[in-house]
Amino acid sequence: MNDRVKKDIEFIVELDKMKSILRQTSLIGEDRREDDAQHSWHIAVMTMVLSEYSNEEFDVNRVIKMLLIHDLVELYAGDTFCYDVEGNKSKRERELAAAGRVFGMLSEDKGKFFRDLWDEFEEMKTPEAKFAASMDRLQPMLNNYYNHGGTWKKFGVAQKDVYERISPLKHTSDELWEFTDKMIEDAYQKGLITKR
Amino acid sequence: MNDRVKKDIEFIVELDKMKSILRQTSLIGEDRREDDAQHSWHIAVMTMVLSEYSNEEFDVNRVIKMLLIHDLVELYAGDTFCYDVEGNKSKRERELAAAGRVFGMLSEDKGKFFRDLWDEFEEMKTPEAKFAASMDRLQPMLNNYYNHGGTWKKFGVAQKDVYERISPLKHTSDELWEFTDKMIEDAYQKGLITKR
Repeated sequence: MNDRVKKDIEFIVELDKMKSILRQTSLIGEDRREDDAQHSWHIAVMTMVLSEYSNEEFDVNRVIKMLLIHDLVELYAGDTFCYDVEGNKSKRERELAAAGRVFGMLSEDKGKFFRDLWDEFEEMKTPEAKFAASMDRLQPMLNNYYNHGGTWKKFGVAQKDVYERISPLKHTSDELWEFTDKMIEDAYQKGLITKR
Repeated sequence: MNDRVKKDIEFIVELDKMKSILRQTSLIGEDRREDDAQHSWHIAVMTMVLSEYSNEEFDVNRVIKMLLIHDLVELYAGDTFCYDVEGNKSKRERELAAAGRVFGMLSEDKGKFFRDLWDEFEEMKTPEAKFAASMDRLQPMLNNYYNHGGTWKKFGVAQKDVYERISPLKHTSDELWEFTDKMIEDAYQKGLITKR
């Protein structure tokens, strides 16, 4: 078999493990945690639905691709909960090693294309990366809000930490920020998050 | 709140249910069945990896979007196993009703954009729809092959039915067909599928 196709198939088979990497967020109306594949799919479709609200022009197709592969490093680095202070200290180092391993499975040029997307996402500087980060952070908040507080309530998360986490959205979209700001205020009123 | 944003958020919350719609295919190395969100993610990334092998030029971004939303009708029509003869008789009618319902949740122009993508996928006439169908059908075969036969073995599927199911790939990509043809022959040699 063509060596390039062989590498691609091995990579695709490896991707299946993303369906077993659990995040902290639960599904709406269920006690079951979502996995990386489900989350990545959800935010890619969210981008299709919400891209029109961006304050600036951007390449929506690049954002979708970025989001589809943004969590592949978790194949080897695992999921690090955003409010886990200790875990986040070693996160960057673990994920860099994982990126070398996962994108290194592909032929060099293709691995570089994927790696460049991931690096762009991580640096969060381009309009595409900022919109991608906004989707990545908004989705678990929607799941928490529509699931009786979810991880907010489970871990006693404070409103200021929620605002800090979702801050990329503030500059990404005025319309989505207006909605999100009201949702976070309402979450506090309902006792789903604490004041500080 | 802006009525358009409100509809979008309701749609996005509804999408969460895709994470609970089980397909027949199991995860590789596990007895657990995959769901529609995981499957849709997997084949969207497969498109990023395998698009270079297409025999003809096509819009890869359109294929990715098509695959991300191709199973949304299963929110209300459920998953119909491809080898379920009875279920497939009513599939089209059930899915058309579901399409009206799910895409009707969005504002009219946005609903039409999604519906057009789904119609194109279903008609399987454009190069984009044919490549999308090829990914949609190849992924469960990979999962079966790398999971001791999976649903092939469970339901005693015959080689001719496997060939018929994957036939769109034959005209989509010579290189991927060469790989797939060998895989199906090997699946028969290993006793994962029956001869007829």
